[in-house]
Parts: sequence; C-alpha cells; structure tokens
Amino acid sequence: MKGKLFYLGLLVSFVISAAAHYLQWNHTVQFVISAIAVVFVAGFLGKATESVAHYAGERMGGFLNATFGNAAELIIAIFLVKDGLFDVVKASLTGSIIGNLLLVLGLSVFAGGLKYKEQSFNVKLASHNSSLMLLGVIALFIPAVFARGLTTKETSSMSMIVAILLVAAYLLWLLFSMVTHKNILSDEAIEHGEPAWSKKTSILFLILATAMVAFTSEWLVGTLEEVTHRFGLSELFVGAFLIAIIGNAAEHSAAVMMAMKNKMGAAVEIAIGSSLQIALFVAPVLVLVSFLMGGTPMNIVFSTYELAAIGVAVFITKSISQDGSTNWYEGLLLMIVYIILGVVFFLV
Amino acid sequence: MKGKLFYLGLLVSFVISAAAHYLQWNHTVQFVISAIAVVFVAGFLGKATESVAHYAGERMGGFLNATFGNAAELIIAIFLVKDGLFDVVKASLTGSIIGNLLLVLGLSVFAGGLKYKEQSFNVKLASHNSSLMLLGVIALFIPAVFARGLTTKETSSMSMIVAILLVAAYLLWLLFSMVTHKNILSDEAIEHGEPAWSKKTSILFLILATAMVAFTSEWLVGTLEEVTHRFGLSELFVGAFLIAIIGNAAEHSAAVMMAMKNKMGAAVEIAIGSSLQIALFVAPVLVLVSFLMGGTPMNIVFSTYELAAIGVAVFITKSISQDGSTNWYEGLLLMIVYIILGVVFFLV
Amino acid sequence: MKGKLFYLGLLVSFVISAAAHYLQWNHTVQFVISAIAVVFVAGFLGKATESVAHYAGERMGGFLNATFGNAAELIIAIFLVKDGLFDVVKASLTGSIIGNLLLVLGLSVFAGGLKYKEQSFNVKLASHNSSLMLLGVIALFIPAVFARGLTTKETSSMSMIVAILLVAAYLLWLLFSMVTHKNILSDEAIEHGEPAWSKKTSILFLILATAMVAFTSEWLVGTLEEVTHRFGLSELFVGAFLIAIIGNAAEHSAAVMMAMKNKMGAAVEIAIGSSLQIALFVAPVLVLVSFLMGGTPMNIVFSTYELAAIGVAVFITKSISQDGSTNWYEGLLLMIVYIILGVVFFLV
Repeated sequence: MKGKLFYLGLLVSFVISAAAHYLQWNHTVQFVISAIAVVFVAGFLGKATESVAHYAGERMGGFLNATFGNAAELIIAIFLVKDGLFDVVKASLTGSIIGNLLLVLGLSVFAGGLKYKEQSFNVKLASHNSSLMLLGVIALFIPAVFARGLTTKETSSMSMIVAILLVAAYLLWLLFSMVTHKNILSDEAIEHGEPAWSKKTSILFLILATAMVAFTSEWLVGTLEEVTHRFGLSELFVGAFLIAIIGNAAEHSAAVMMAMKNKMGAAVEIAIGSSLQIALFVAPVLVLVSFLMGGTPMNIVFSTYELAAIGVAVFITKSISQDGSTNWYEGLLLMIVYIILGVVFFLV
Repeated sequence: MKGKLFYLGLLVSFVISAAAHYLQWNHTVQFVISAIAVVFVAGFLGKATESVAHYAGERMGGFLNATFGNAAELIIAIFLVKDGLFDVVKASLTGSIIGNLLLVLGLSVFAGGLKYKEQSFNVKLASHNSSLMLLGVIALFIPAVFARGLTTKETSSMSMIVAILLVAAYLLWLLFSMVTHKNILSDEAIEHGEPAWSKKTSILFLILATAMVAFTSEWLVGTLEEVTHRFGLSELFVGAFLIAIIGNAAEHSAAVMMAMKNKMGAAVEIAIGSSLQIALFVAPVLVLVSFLMGGTPMNIVFSTYELAAIGVAVFITKSISQDGSTNWYEGLLLMIVYIILGVVFFLV
Repeated sequence: MKGKLFYLGLLVSFVISAAAHYLQWNHTVQFVISAIAVVFVAGFLGKATESVAHYAGERMGGFLNATFGNAAELIIAIFLVKDGLFDVVKASLTGSIIGNLLLVLGLSVFAGGLKYKEQSFNVKLASHNSSLMLLGVIALFIPAVFARGLTTKETSSMSMIVAILLVAAYLLWLLFSMVTHKNILSDEAIEHGEPAWSKKTSILFLILATAMVAFTSEWLVGTLEEVTHRFGLSELFVGAFLIAIIGNAAEHSAAVMMAMKNKMGAAVEIAIGSSLQIALFVAPVLVLVSFLMGGTPMNIVFSTYELAAIGVAVFITKSISQDGSTNWYEGLLLMIVYIILGVVFFLV
C-alpha cells in the first residue's frame, strides 16, 4: 500500500474507528474497525520515526529506530497495563516475539526462498542476535522457575531488578552495535531512501502518529474483554495471536518485501531485531512502568505456556539462522511451528 | 551375515517362530524366537525395498527408501496400536529415536573413529537434519506441555492436527531434499550396488517380506505383555530398549559398516535420517492410523521421561554433528548418554 | 599479588585463622578470616601443583593439572559431605560451575574485550568443550527428571552408576585430549613459565599446601551453619555464591590475566575446563566418596533451581563461545546472567 491510498486508508479508518468508539457501536464492529486503524497508524508511526531518524543523523537515528520501532506495541501494552490486564500484556509480548521469529521471519524466508534458491546474510550478526535472544529467554525463564519459591513482594523485587538489568543490557547492546562494533555487524542496511517530509513536518507527524496510536490503542483495548468473551476465546489466544498480529503488521510487510528483493540480512534484522526489542526492552519497560503507575505492579513471571512458546521459537530460529543462509524449506519449518503454537493456544 | 546364510537364517527363524506361535510354546521362548525372526525379516524387507527402489528410478526410489525405511517398526507399532498398547508404542518410538541417535550413531562414530583419526561429512546436511530434528522435538514437546490444560477431546483434536502438519512437513522435506535442493545436500551416497533380483522378483519379495514382517510382529507383540510381567520389566523399558533394538538391528549394522569404510556421511544419513522418519513420519502416521481404526484414538502426548530422553538425544547429537566432523570420543559421549538413559529407564 | 607479599599473606592469614579457630573467636570473624585463608592456600596449592606438574613431564603434568586443578574445592566439599551438608555441597558445585562459566569467563571476555576489539581462540576446542559440558548437563538433568519415579535405594544405585560413567568419561577425555588428539585441540598453551622451586621442594609444598587447604576448609565449613543462620541466608546462596567464589578465586585472577594478555584460548580453557572438571569429575567423585564413607550416601540429584542455573549457564556459554571469537559485550551478557542468578538465589 503506497502513497495516497495509504493516507486515505489511515484517515478513513481513524475517523470511522473514532465514530465507532464515541457513538458506542456494537463492540465487535468497534474491535474490527479499531484493529484496522491500529495497523494504519502503526504504519504511519513507523514512517514518521524513520523520517525523523533520517534527520537526526546516523547514530541518533539508529537509536530512534531501535527504541521507537515497537512504539505501537508499547503503547497498546501500556493501555493494557493501565487496565490491569497483565495476562493479556504478557500474552501479547509472547505473541510479538513468536510472531516475529516464526511468522514474519518464516514468511520472509519462505517467500524469498521460492524466488532465490539460497539466500545468505552476515553470520556474525546472526550469532550475536542469537546470544541476545538467549539472554531474553533466560531472563524470562529464570524468574518463572524461581517465582514458585518466592512471596509476592520478593517476586516484585526480582521483577524490578531483572527489568533494570535487561534495559541496561539493551542500551549497552545499542552502544555495542552502533558505536564500538559497528562495522563487524553491518550487513546490507535496511533500505530507508529519502525521507518523505521536511524535518519540521516529520517531527510534527511523529507527535501526531504517536497520539493517533494512543487513541486507537485505547479504543481497541476497551473492546477487548467483551470480544474475547463473546467469541469464547482465551486471553492467551487473543493476546498472543490477534493483538500481536495487529501490532506487528507493519514489520511483516517490510520484512517480506526485503526478502523478495534478496536482502535477507535486512529481513532477518527486522524480524529478529524486533523480537529482541520486545524481550529486552518493551517487556522490562512495561514492568517498570507498572511500578511507576502505583497499584499492584506487573511482575516479569510468564506462564509455562508462554515460556514454552518463546523457548521453542528461539531455538528453532537459532538453529535455522546460525549458518547464515536460508531456503524455502527453513521458512516453512518456522511457519509450521507457528501454526502448531496457534492451534494449542487456541485450544487451551 | 551375507548371502545363503542370511536366507537360511530367515527361513529357519520364521518357520520356528511360526511353530512356536501356533503350537503355543512357552511365552518367553516364543518372544526370543520371534524377536530373532523379526531381525531377519526386517533385514529381508530392507533388501527388497532397496531392490524395488533401484528399478523405480532415482526419485521414486529415494521416496520408497525414505518411506519404507522404517516399515518394520511401523508394522510392529500398528499391531501394538491395534492391541491398545499405546504406552508401549510411544516407548518404542522413543527408543527408536534415541537408539538411532545415540547407539547407532554413537557406535558408528566410535568404531569409525578408532580406525580413522577424524571423519567428516557434509555440514549443510547436518545443519538441515538438526533443524528438522528440532521440529520433531518441538512437535512432541508442545503437545505435552499444553495437554495438561486440555480435555481428552481437545487433546485428540490437537494430536490429529499436529500429526497432519508433521506428515506434511515430512513430505515437503522429501520434495526439498530430493527435488528442489538435491545437489546442496548430496554427500557420499549410501552404497546400493546392483540389485539382487529381477524387477518382478523384487516386487514379489517386497510383498512377501511385508507379509512376513506382519506375521512375526504380531507373534512378537502377542507375547510381550506376559514376558514384561514375568521379568518385572516396565513397558517403558521393554518398548524403549528391547523392541527398539530388535526393530532397528538392520540399520545398526548398515551404519557401522559405512563408518568403517570411512563413509561417515552415509552413516549419519542412516542414523539421523531414520530417527527423523520416526519422529516426523512414523509417529504421526500411527496417530492417524489409530483414528481410522475407531475406538479410543492414540494421542501424540509423550511422557516427561520420553520427552527428556528424546530432547537430550537430539541436543547432544546436534552439538556433536554440527561441525561436520567426528572422532572416537564423540561416539563414546553418545553411547554414554545412551547407557545413562538405559539405566534410568530400567530403574523407573 | 606476587612473590613475598603473597607468602606473607598466606602465612599471616593461616596463622590468624588457626588462632580464631582454636581460641573460638566470634563465628562471623572466624568465617571471614578462614575464607581469606582459603583463598591464599588455594592459590598456594595451585602453584605447588603447577610446579610438580612441570617436573612430572608433559603428559603426567597435564594429568596432574587437570585432576588437581579443583583440589581446593574438592577438599572443601569432602568436609561438607562428612558433615552431611549435602545441599550445601550441591549448591557449591552449582556455584563453581556457573561461577566459572559466567563470572570468570564473563569477566575475562569483558576485560579482554575492552582492551582488544575482538579476541579469538581455537573453534575445535570450543566445540569439544561444549559437547562435554552438554554431557555434564545431561548427566545431572536425567537423574533429576527420573528421580521422582524412584525409591531412595534406586536413586542411590542410579547415582553410583551415573557417577562411575562420568568419571570414566572424564578420564577418557584426558586420554583423548592429551594423547590421541593432542594436536587438534592445542591452542596457545596456558603460560606456565619456570617452576618456582626444586623438584623436592615442590613435592613437599604440594603436601603442605594440601594439608593447609584441608585445615582451613574444615575451619571454614565449621562456622558455615551459624553464619548462614545469623545473616538469614539460604544454604543455596551460601553454597552457590560465597563458597564457590572463595574456592575459585585463584582461577578468577589467572583467567582474567590471560585475557588481558590477549591469550583468550588460555582463559577459556581455565574457565570452561574448570567447570567441566567440577561437573564430570568433582561431582561424581563426591558421590562415590560419600558411598565409601558409609552412612546415608549423597545422591546425584540436583534441585530444579540448581539445574536451571547450570543449564542456563551452559547454554549461554555455548552460544557465545561457539564462533571462536569474543568481544566485550559477550562478556557483559555472561555477567548479567550471573547477576540475575545471584539475585534469584539470594531471594529464594
């Protein structure tokens, strides 16, 4: 979807979902419309971030892209945290991670692999990414194992400390990959092209887009509970599949397009980078935000189901990406694991 | 055992085990004799499959070898399914997987490593195999984790869907490895040599061998329960060690012989390929067969013990095979893990 | 700390801790002083071992270094076993393994990485080490999984058998790495330099150092229980962090110094080699020793917490070391995991 059509869609979907919200239309209708609006405004936020990043210079721009890349998901999640829907938050974080690793990467590798026999990318990048992903898995796995022996208060302390350590690890990773070891990891860069707007407009649009994401996210989250019950879905399934797919739609199309242009390195960076950001930045930030909000804070303890899903996704991605080359069958494997997880999350 | 001696053994063991069965000899005697007969007829079935595969042309032949390679185990397992001995089935599938990965591969690597200092094989093949094995582990692990939260009916649905996905993954793997990416994975081919018989005789022998496997398997399975109780063994141990070793005897000798001829690629292909077939083809086919048979269907939920054994076997094999070279100590490591598993399965 | 200062520290700390013990000073004071003494005498034992190893010739010397390398920890642990403090023993073994993999290696990689952009070492060594570490994890994981289904007596049998298999695996590993495949694994050797003493003095000092370690260990262990209770610490935390750090201080400084001299291969060998020795040699030897001591023997079943910590440490180390090169960020990752584990062990 490019150019005018995109902005038309953005405007129309936003206006209609606003109408749906304030005129209190049927909840299911509200949910569907605001979901569409979220996809558009998340895309808009992505464009605005990229444009501002362009003007901010290489280093600061990279930092902006890296921290605002999942802004839409972060904002949606903050509204969920505000409503105390911690289980949905964790499910949606889980869903983002496995969605990026299995669906986005799987589809990219599969689609790219049908066009090109073998696609390759920087092995060093893959190796570093997989060590970082492992840190993410460990940082979620350890608290879950030990939480059984802890009081609620101890669990809160543990969550805070682990969250701070993860954010520190993430910020130092940016330092590492953008400053001290920039050249080692550089691959075909993600194509950015010329910015669409002037500097001033870009900043204005970034603020506007953030606001639009905030509104539509609130509308979406507001109808969530009723829709969940109406269709007999579990919070786990809604969070891990519906919310995650809606919040990540922009990354999906970008990664697949990169793969089709034989820029597998960029596709891998989008998919794995995005799930790294969720695990090492978005998740701990949400824990810290919930502490600042007062009330019962959200802990960092994920359920066995969620950990199993994340663990499995990381291991199969690690196994497939570690040789630095991909083919259609590897993409298929990733997608099959995603479907299996979808089936069991739906049934549970 | 070659030539005439083999056929003599085949004939004698088959006739005696038939006598033992119909004359209702002592159950332990029946068990031992039919076990020996199964080893022979499984070997015969292997030869017949290979010979038919030779005449069927390269592609169709590869397919035949790949799907009939574990025919003996499949037939034994079908009789176990028919008798409702689901736990023994799962134990024997577990035993086949760990037996191939740890015992067959371990012995091949060890024996080959004593003769040659370092043996090597196609790294790409190893990498693909290990991703596939990981899919197998995931496809058994996920249902086990989620089954705790499911009703019997939901578990059945899940088992069916996962089984269908695995069979699809396996068939597409054949497409990948035999059609679209044939050259990338080719290594020293498994030695086939000239077929022993004419085309007609081969087909006739294939039918005959299948029938003989079916008979001897039924005889073997029929005495299983009493022997298990008589010697105070658990179904887990009998399935995972006795049945699995009996059903895989042919692969064992073939793989070790390849390793001794310094064709480690072929040995790896037999051992890992065979366990892949069990996890991605035989296991799901048995689930589907049990659905078609009516009655209580067999689900795909393996026990914690079985999953631990399979997981451990896959991880150590992956770790050892991923550099594409082997030595005697790596073979020893595999065998030590097999012995540890044997000890704990025996004690449980 | 070199030369005269070291021996002064050794003498003074030993004498004072003897005084503290026999004059029955305050327990906390006794604990602190004997901990300092243990660090010195462990360092002394290390020097003496190295010196004797020098005179013993290359092969026998390598064997001495490999088996006496963790002598201090072994002696401390034997006193713990004697007092029936099995949980502290297992916690301290866990702590040694994760301390070597995460803290020692992490600090070495981090410190070396700040000085040199990229440091590299023999990939073959890393690959073999990680397969061996995996065996260690498996050999601790399997008994823990299966122990739930076993009686105490069966658990003892299992522990004995697994312990014997591990010691055998370790001895054969020495055969492999020092005899049959010496050249494949050789890297920059750990710097030994000239021995400090004559042959006779070296042997005398080895005996003296062993005796001193035995005394100070007994004094340290004797005050452990009261200190643990006084400060409200868990046995798990004391064993896994305090005891482990005290017992491994010598390795810590040696590995970091190697890394700073850009001899990353040597640093990796010290850190990973030492944890291998704990998992495959010290742990099973302690099980066997407890059998010989009579009374209730110690089994090889570690707690879920301990297994989670060891598993996590091995996986992240494997992931980081498998490409044969390191940088500061990888060191940081290891240390972050160590801190996370420290926090949760402290809270539990």
